[in-house]
Amino acid sequence: MNLNKLFKPKSMAVVGISKKNPISPGRIIFVKNEFEMTVKTYGINPEGGNIEGVQLYTRLDKLPEIPDLLVIALPAESTIQYVEECAHLNIPACIIIGGGFAEIGSEGLNLQKSLEKIAFDNDIAVLGPNCIGVYSPPLIDTIFMPTERITRPPKGSVALISQSGGVLVDQFFHKFNEIKIGVSTAVSIGNRAVVDEAMLLEYFSKEDKETSNIAFYLEGFKPNKARKFLEIAKQSVDMVITYFGGLSKEGKMAIKSHTASLAGNEKILSAALKQNLIIQPKSESELLTFLKLFNILSQRKKPFDENMVVFGKVAILSLSGGHGVICADLLKKYSLSIVAFTEQQQEEMRKLVNPVARNIASFNNPIDLTGSAQDEDIVNIVQYISKIEQIECIILLILPYAPSISFMIGRRISNAITQPKKPIVCFIPYIEKYGLIIEALELSNIPVFHSIKETVQAVSALKVRTKIYNLRKQNPPVYWNDR
Amino acid sequence: MNLNKLFKPKSMAVVGISKKNPISPGRIIFVKNEFEMTVKTYGINPEGGNIEGVQLYTRLDKLPEIPDLLVIALPAESTIQYVEECAHLNIPACIIIGGGFAEIGSEGLNLQKSLEKIAFDNDIAVLGPNCIGVYSPPLIDTIFMPTERITRPPKGSVALISQSGGVLVDQFFHKFNEIKIGVSTAVSIGNRAVVDEAMLLEYFSKEDKETSNIAFYLEGFKPNKARKFLEIAKQSVDMVITYFGGLSKEGKMAIKSHTASLAGNEKILSAALKQNLIIQPKSESELLTFLKLFNILSQRKKPFDENMVVFGKVAILSLSGGHGVICADLLKKYSLSIVAFTEQQQEEMRKLVNPVARNIASFNNPIDLTGSAQDEDIVNIVQYISKIEQIECIILLILPYAPSISFMIGRRISNAITQPKKPIVCFIPYIEKYGLIIEALELSNIPVFHSIKETVQAVSALKVRTKIYNLRKQNPPVYWNDR
Repeated sequence: MNLNKLFKPKSMAVVGISKKNPISPGRIIFVKNEFEMTVKTYGINPEGGNIEGVQLYTRLDKLPEIPDLLVIALPAESTIQYVEECAHLNIPACIIIGGGFAEIGSEGLNLQKSLEKIAFDNDIAVLGPNCIGVYSPPLIDTIFMPTERITRPPKGSVALISQSGGVLVDQFFHKFNEIKIGVSTAVSIGNRAVVDEAMLLEYFSKEDKETSNIAFYLEGFKPNKARKFLEIAKQSVDMVITYFGGLSKEGKMAIKSHTASLAGNEKILSAALKQNLIIQPKSESELLTFLKLFNILSQRKKPFDENMVVFGKVAILSLSGGHGVICADLLKKYSLSIVAFTEQQQEEMRKLVNPVARNIASFNNPIDLTGSAQDEDIVNIVQYISKIEQIECIILLILPYAPSISFMIGRRISNAITQPKKPIVCFIPYIEKYGLIIEALELSNIPVFHSIKETVQAVSALKVRTKIYNLRKQNPPVYWNDR
Repeated sequence: MNLNKLFKPKSMAVVGISKKNPISPGRIIFVKNEFEMTVKTYGINPEGGNIEGVQLYTRLDKLPEIPDLLVIALPAESTIQYVEECAHLNIPACIIIGGGFAEIGSEGLNLQKSLEKIAFDNDIAVLGPNCIGVYSPPLIDTIFMPTERITRPPKGSVALISQSGGVLVDQFFHKFNEIKIGVSTAVSIGNRAVVDEAMLLEYFSKEDKETSNIAFYLEGFKPNKARKFLEIAKQSVDMVITYFGGLSKEGKMAIKSHTASLAGNEKILSAALKQNLIIQPKSESELLTFLKLFNILSQRKKPFDENMVVFGKVAILSLSGGHGVICADLLKKYSLSIVAFTEQQQEEMRKLVNPVARNIASFNNPIDLTGSAQDEDIVNIVQYISKIEQIECIILLILPYAPSISFMIGRRISNAITQPKKPIVCFIPYIEKYGLIIEALELSNIPVFHSIKETVQAVSALKVRTKIYNLRKQNPPVYWNDR
């Protein structure tokens, strides 16, 4: 089944456009694609007429061309006839917004089975039902919330697939936008009657050149599709990350009424994911940190050496002793370790900083330059520790509260780390007035985080990445008993 | 030792004001108190003259009055003579900014011992050395970072005590400001040579009427002071929260060079804290969520019934199935539980919502009203579940992305929950354009959080509060072996 027309259609038609209700899903989808996106959009309404000055067509077969994609925003019963029409007119892709299928029980299940049969018999890439569709900037956006209500992430390297529309729009769109992660294509799979997570993983992994990282929110695998999913993940050159909802007993109960999936046994699932080099973040914050880091590493301009290896040996450079202590505690939690400096190294570093800081700073790891640090001190120490071979990664805890830190510090760090390009991850408090410092680092693709925890999670992401790259050479096995 | 003059001085003098260097600590402290705070401020410089048009005095005994407080921002050696002068002139309180005492080893340790002797012999409340002092709005602020570099939290119910100046300014000030927690007084204790955490706990717990919640960042108790601390905490009517840095092996190493404290054995510490009703948050995010919730509950206008009891039986009302699932998973993690609704309750709720949502919504717990929910539906369901006796707390997951949710939703929820006042905690994504909704809730003191995790942590805080209130009636024992 070819998914290309689902995500890269030249033209698309929308049915279910209400003339009375401006916030009906069909109308919102039609209007936002007509006015905001680049795809050629046609609106269908049996009565014809127009919406906001744009002509509507009475029937699909009256359109000037056969569209690549049909978006159906109608109740379940009326939906089927349009899918049949897709078969009849050779429309290769279809997004079904409406609910009332398998998720409501036996009655809806029959409708969904009819739907599946038409789709598979006629090779139509049907997304949904009961979904919010596709966002593939700048081409199409079938998310039926008004654009001014949501926040849309920029174009980037991450393909997003979610079993929950709410999670797609909130945990992914909103958060991605906030922490500047870019999306290649975002997909809400709903009941995944036809197009499922394994097909999507295959498409984004093998066919979509814009994608380098693939993230899933799932509440369980589609029955009989787990093994396929794992096999594809194992062969992927992209980073594959799955975040599962409903692994607890309480969560499982909640799933029953949501997607009627089954997340299954947590331990078996985790083992199978790990075995097949799929990353399973422990929390929403870890999910986002990992994606932010991988998105940065997918940029054309690389911040670090391409062949960098991080198994977890870290140096911490801080301007606050307390931050160093908290960071050290967190390193332990994420199975990373602090490299001890020799007496000689400590003495050499001491000579590199200004006389006031020199007398009160501490050059153990974590290094604490104190609030008396100046820009030059930070640059000198970063360059010094970059050259220490056993250190694989540097954590910089920059607090621009210190009176002598200038607004040049971001730019100066960016310039300092070009040779050798040892991985560096920065913590800077997220305060508007420090935007200039943060921007200087981000323009050089240096990862910047706004809590010590995320900063440590980012180093953990580097370690995970190193391990996956190493394991990919060994071709690990797939273990999963499909039902 | 009376700490009142340290935190509520009528007048204060500053020594260590550099005329050449505008960002020297003494000068920053002098200028910010003179121009930004209400305390009467005097500047001392042996050469006299003036700074920014304000007259400086050559000596302490030349001041028009004996000040309540002296701030000393000088190197260690010169500091001692000024503490002696405090004794001579009967100045009752003193803040020592400079380092170079116990934290640098044996040489500094002797200086610190002299300091202690003068202070205890003459009953001078000495804060520090090696600290950034006190912030007690609107009266005084001796934090030596320029005000425009930091963010200062508003006045409120939380007393803050930190062993790290960096943590005070960043994890507390910056974050408090961001999530709107107010501070009564903030204290950086530095080497705590004289004034220590036990004395501060006693002061804020018994003497300071502005304080209802007391939070500590510590890297270990002062030797021989743990038992005293625990005893006072046990008797406190305030919420006492301690966040410890340096409990891991890595963290302990980091502490050595920072404050030379000893966090000690994690398990023994945790047991002693718990035994004496001191809250020990597991993470920075939990610390902040707990404080935000307790600060809200300290407001004069109470959002909930004063006698509310929350042992963890929760109802979740969501507009997104995925959010309900993730929330249910997190409840499990925080030892909270979902109350199952009866068939009849579910049918009754179904009748309360609009016809579109009615057909696709799920009324199990978590309730999922779907993206078709309207304001009225949320209000009706909140009022319905407020009256179900076995439900102790409601979690509302509001996603204003849904097309029919209006900007009145915050105000309508505020109005809906006045009778009966069952505890309610809201999740709303933190997006500027939803500010109006968030503000309507916050004006009614309804706790609003911006991640599902924090929302669940807040319910966990309600549970902890209930347990502490119950245990306080039982007068629990103090266990701790002081060295």
